[in-house]
Formats: sequence, C-alpha cells, structure tokens
Amino acid sequence: MKYPTEMKRGPNDPGLENPGRRTMLLGSAGAMAAVSLLGFTPLARGEEPKTLPDYVAWKERNALILHSANTMETQRGAIGQGVITSSDRLFVRNNLPAPSEEIVADRDAWEVNIEGVKNPRALTIGELKSMGVTTVASVLQCSGNGRAFFPHGASGTQWSVGAAGCVMWTGVPLKTVVEALGGPADGMKYITSTGGESLPDGIDPKTIMVERSVPLHALDTAMLAWEMNDEPLPLTHGGPLRMVVPGFYGVNNVKYVKNVAFTEGQTDAKIQASGYRVRDVGKKGSPDQPSMWEMNVKSWVTAPLETGRSGRNMIYGVAFGGTKSLDKVEVSTDGGQSWKQAQFLGPDLGPYAWRPFVLAADLSAGEHRIVSRATDVEGNSQPEGRTENERGYGHNGWKDHGVTVTVS
Amino acid sequence: MKYPTEMKRGPNDPGLENPGRRTMLLGSAGAMAAVSLLGFTPLARGEEPKTLPDYVAWKERNALILHSANTMETQRGAIGQGVITSSDRLFVRNNLPAPSEEIVADRDAWEVNIEGVKNPRALTIGELKSMGVTTVASVLQCSGNGRAFFPHGASGTQWSVGAAGCVMWTGVPLKTVVEALGGPADGMKYITSTGGESLPDGIDPKTIMVERSVPLHALDTAMLAWEMNDEPLPLTHGGPLRMVVPGFYGVNNVKYVKNVAFTEGQTDAKIQASGYRVRDVGKKGSPDQPSMWEMNVKSWVTAPLETGRSGRNMIYGVAFGGTKSLDKVEVSTDGGQSWKQAQFLGPDLGPYAWRPFVLAADLSAGEHRIVSRATDVEGNSQPEGRTENERGYGHNGWKDHGVTVTVS
Repeated sequence: MKYPTEMKRGPNDPGLENPGRRTMLLGSAGAMAAVSLLGFTPLARGEEPKTLPDYVAWKERNALILHSANTMETQRGAIGQGVITSSDRLFVRNNLPAPSEEIVADRDAWEVNIEGVKNPRALTIGELKSMGVTTVASVLQCSGNGRAFFPHGASGTQWSVGAAGCVMWTGVPLKTVVEALGGPADGMKYITSTGGESLPDGIDPKTIMVERSVPLHALDTAMLAWEMNDEPLPLTHGGPLRMVVPGFYGVNNVKYVKNVAFTEGQTDAKIQASGYRVRDVGKKGSPDQPSMWEMNVKSWVTAPLETGRSGRNMIYGVAFGGTKSLDKVEVSTDGGQSWKQAQFLGPDLGPYAWRPFVLAADLSAGEHRIVSRATDVEGNSQPEGRTENERGYGHNGWKDHGVTVTVS
Repeated sequence: MKYPTEMKRGPNDPGLENPGRRTMLLGSAGAMAAVSLLGFTPLARGEEPKTLPDYVAWKERNALILHSANTMETQRGAIGQGVITSSDRLFVRNNLPAPSEEIVADRDAWEVNIEGVKNPRALTIGELKSMGVTTVASVLQCSGNGRAFFPHGASGTQWSVGAAGCVMWTGVPLKTVVEALGGPADGMKYITSTGGESLPDGIDPKTIMVERSVPLHALDTAMLAWEMNDEPLPLTHGGPLRMVVPGFYGVNNVKYVKNVAFTEGQTDAKIQASGYRVRDVGKKGSPDQPSMWEMNVKSWVTAPLETGRSGRNMIYGVAFGGTKSLDKVEVSTDGGQSWKQAQFLGPDLGPYAWRPFVLAADLSAGEHRIVSRATDVEGNSQPEGRTENERGYGHNGWKDHGVTVTVS
C-alpha cells in the first residue's frame, strides 16, 4: 500500500533521546566501545535504514518512517481513520535495544516482583491471568511527538505526528493485584516500574536503565498488560508484560516490566531524575521540573495531506484528551481564521482513546492551510503555539500541526 | 499460532446452502456442467481442503475451519477476547464465487445504481465518499451459524459457532445518499440490494442471483461500506462496496453491491422468496414464512474449551443482541443449574457489536459443562433449546452452545 507523502520533516537523527545513552555515546568511554555494549549500531546522522530491522520485520514497511533501528514513526498518511491503530503500523521507540526473543518463549512464566505492598511477592503472568482481566483502549504517544516542529533543533528523534497510536491493552488492573497483596505500604506516593532490558557492564545502571515513577493516583487506571490489539504483546512493544498507564506519555508504560514498587519518592534513575523533564531551552534536566506524565489535549489532520479537488473534500484527523474525554474538535481550512466543528467517527472507546474525526468542507482552487483544534470536557483547548522547551516535549499547538493542501 | 481444538462438529458438507445452487447442482442440467459454469469445483462430501484457496490466501489458515472453497469458519479457540475480529480470522461464506480481482483495481470507479427514489441515478464510490461517512461496529453472522447442532441434519454448511465475527464498517449512511436523491419514492416498503457477481448463462438468474430485500425501517442504520476494519474492503468480503445492515443476518449484507432499489414488495429472487425462510422440518421455503432479517440475542464461550486447572479459571466468551444492546451475560459451570453474572470486557462499541465477557470461576477437578446466556436490554434471553427448523437457521439456544471442560 502506498501512503500519501509525509509532510516535510526536520533533519534525521540517530534517535538518541535517552539522556543516559547520549551521555554514554558522547562520553569519555569512547563512542564505538559504548555502541558495541549496546548490541547494535546507531545510524550516523542523516542515515535512514531502508529495510526494517529483524525484530520489527513483521511491521508494514510502507506505513513507517524509519528514523533509526530503534525509532520508527507511523506515516501521517498511514494513520487512517480507524479507532484503533493496527500493531503493524504502530510507531516504535525503544530506549534500549529489546531483550532477546527468549523472554516471550514461555510468556506465562515471566515473573514480576511487586514491592512496597503489605505482602510483597513475585507473580508470574500465569498467576496474573487468574486474578482479573480488563481491556482498555488508550493512546500510546512518545513525549517527543511533534519535536520536529521546534525551531531550536531540540535533540532527539525528529518525530512529526506519527509517534502515537491508539491501541487496545488487555491485562489485569494493577489495583486488583495490589489489593490481593494487602494494598500499598503506608506512606507510598509513587508507582515505580522497572524494565527488563539487559544492561551493559561497566556503566552505572542508573544512567541507562528504564525505571519510571508515576504518581500513586495512577493506580486507579494502571494495568499490567499481556495483550495488545487482541494478540499476545509483541516483544517490540514490551511483551511479555508491560506496565500501562492510560493517558500517560509512552515512557511511563514500562516494557518487559520485571519490578513494580510502591515508593515514597521517585526513582533516581536518570530517565526520571533529569530525563523527560520540561525546562527552558538550554537548561539541564532536574527533578524539580515537570515530568512527562499525563498527556495534554491534541489533534492533527490525517487527510488530505497534499492535494485536494475543487469542491467537497472530506477532512479527516484524530484527536484525544490524554486522561480526559473530548468535548469537540474544530477544523479550519484558512489557517485558523474561521473554524467549523467536525464530526466524530466511529464508537467512543473511552477517555484514554483517540477519536477519529471528519469534516466535509467545500474548498476552492488554491492553497489551503488546514488545522484542527481539540477541546476536552474540562474546556482545555489546544493552544495556537508551542511551549518552547529544551527537549521538545509535549507539543500540542495546533498551528504547527496543520497541513498545506493544494486544491485544483 | 495453534488454537485449542474445535469442539466436535457435525459432518462436513460441500457448503451448498444457497437453494439456487443446490437446485442447479442436483438438477437436470447435470451436476458437472453446472459446476463448471460456477467457475469452481465444490468439494465432495467429507472432503476438506487443506490449504486456503487463492482468493483467501491472506487469511490465517490456523484460525479457520475450511468447510469448502467458499465456506470457512473461525475456530472457536481463535475468536479471542477482542471487541473486533481481525479480518484475517473472519469467517467466509459466499453464495456465489467472488468476482474477479479486477473490480477492486479502481475502487473509486465502482458504480451503484440507486433506484426507487425521487431522482434515481448511478453514483461512484468516489462520489459516495464525498457525501458523508460513518463508522459502525456490527456483528456479521451467517443465518446458519449453529446449524451443526441440529439433530435432524439440516442441510447446508455445518457451522458450529464460528460463522460470526464483529467488524468495523466504514462507509456512507444509506439515508444520506437517499436524501440527496430526494428520498424514497412514495409507497416503497423495502430496500432491495443486488450483488455484482457474474451469473452463468443458461440458468434463470432469479434462481441463483444474490438479491435481498429488507424492511424500509433498516434505512435508519443501513450503510454502503467501502472499508472493513480500517482497510479497503477485501474482495472476499464484498469489496469494493457492500450493503451493510447492522444487526441483520449476513445474507442481507449484499456484497459487490451494484444496485439498491426502494421497492413496494420483496424481490422474487429465490434467495429471498424461498431461501432463508424459517419453516418446520420437511417443509419447503415460501414467501409467507419469516425471513432471516434481524438477529436474535446470542452468546457462547470461547475459553476454556477442553481442559482447565483445578482452582481459579477465567471463562471467556462473546455475546450480542442483534439490533439491541445487551443487558447482561450469565455463565453456568454446571450445565445451567446455577448461574453467575459475567463481566463485560473492553469498550462498548454500540448496540450492533458484540461484547466479550469474562467470569472468574473456581472449578473443582472433574467434568464441567460450561454454558452462557445473554439477555438484551428489552429482556429477551437466549432460550435453553432450539427452534427446530428445516434449514437450521437462527439457533441461539444456550444448551447446545456450551462446552464440556475437564478440570484436573
């Protein structure tokens, strides 16, 4: 299948968003030595792989933009008008190389330690499956989705709009598990999840490990998921078991989760302490800055992207409210001077899902700047501009996300 | 992927459910001559193809039971716990061989005639796409799903539970199209849709053509669909354009639809006049008998199917209410002596969709007969038994649909 060409993007990038990896690669240990420890070769700047790496060979190549071996985004034209993103088109963003396929050979045997509860213990997926089950649709989105639009050249993968998708997660509510273990220990304020990636020797694990803390209130919706889109969770996306925190940015949905701890404070792992922190351009990350937790309200147009025919055009897009349901989406075909309310398309999969939308618009010949603006049920609307920040996180400004369409 | 073995089914069958085809094949013209006119070779009784025919080669072989080249059902163990059935596992049931792939080469050019309206005309899919769009999840189910459970040996494909799936349809509401053409002409009581299959010469078209009439009230929900599960509608399932009547049995969802007429009476095509009519065993079909239109409330267990472990077992299944939303599903692990209410799993995709359900049940060692019983919002529950009828249509009795599980 051929998709409409992606809009102009920023320069390619080796995909070194993780501060730990960046430090390591550029640090005193020597770039190539560090690279071999990671078990893969990052691409040189500007070099884009032409074929999919083996671990994602099952993905639909034509639907993806390959930024690096570990970072791939869904083509804007391949997002489609569906309520669910098929797994073979979903973006890929791994902070570390995926573990060996061996960990999904016997899925039910995978163990996760639950700590910081009254009765801590390890549980296998087999055991989790007998405790309870829920299915939730939620948007998975990288914190840096939209980074390509920042003019200061925010470092990290130059995502346009496609580091996001809406998927179905099936697993056990974390609350069900924790209640069976007597509930969180007294005084705990965070849920801290640790990924099961192998870490190279000779590097301080804290600088590279994937360990994220989210506020305790996430316990109301968090789940330990073993299925995505009704299939066993692929290794690529965190199988056999992933922490899913609906409405939170992707990084909090820890893959290959091997440890879930209720903790008094946030982890001091670099990915939490200084990574994924919103700060002014030029500043370093630190724990006092806002962390990338709940997602903000956002939308973008998915069709048409380049050309239209004079007369009636159907303008499609997707919109979501992070942890809040949507109230409405408006579309403008004149760059934001006038707006019309779009119609939601298909069933509402709940507050954490996205909603495809459509507007029938009569367009005259010429160039049209098409933009969309979503508003959640609490009245939060997408702003016009960006919140400038060092790493290009959380961009939901409607202006940058528009497309220019030539109608003839 | 290996699925649990299907429960014991009835004898295989060449899949000659269509009365027209049956007559033709057994009639005076000579079976083999008629066969060659159809363009494919029906299987001898008891013969099951081992590999998928070319036109469905993209399907997941292991998820399907192949009854014949034109009839394939989803393995009970492959139905899964999802709200949507993936296209590659969806059952196949064609009354006639599918047309050539040529008809999906230029999808937007496909024309459908709209007749029996104030301003009749032909519209291309390209034109339909600019008129409006909607996405609806609905269960697609063959009228004969469950036929294998009839003890009198109802003729037709011996479907167990897998001639059903829940899919997303995207297209234009028929009402939108009809309103643009001035509305139905006065006095019209039915919507009559005609399929675009090629018919063999030398046979009265009325005995073989796929042309179905549904009551005019279906105009409130009917749609002309060009996408299924967010992909262009596969030829196998009626692409480029299919009439979809949510909540109605499969046969009314006419594939490759080339004509939609608002009519005073029902079509006299055999598939409508005498086919798909509910009558006593031994009787012939006739227009005064109930037609297979709206589906009834139904459910079945999808896991476990054969074995369980002593202790906590999660019992999964799917349930739907035809054109009505569900109120509840109850599950019994003692063959219907006692019942517990199951929990619905995942988002509600609307009244025409199915709802996966789950019940956590503590099972002791031994044999357990597990059955499920759905009730719709109007209080209609599945009956215990069958409504015996000649062709084995519309079976929703809970007793036959149960599974016997050995717990050790």
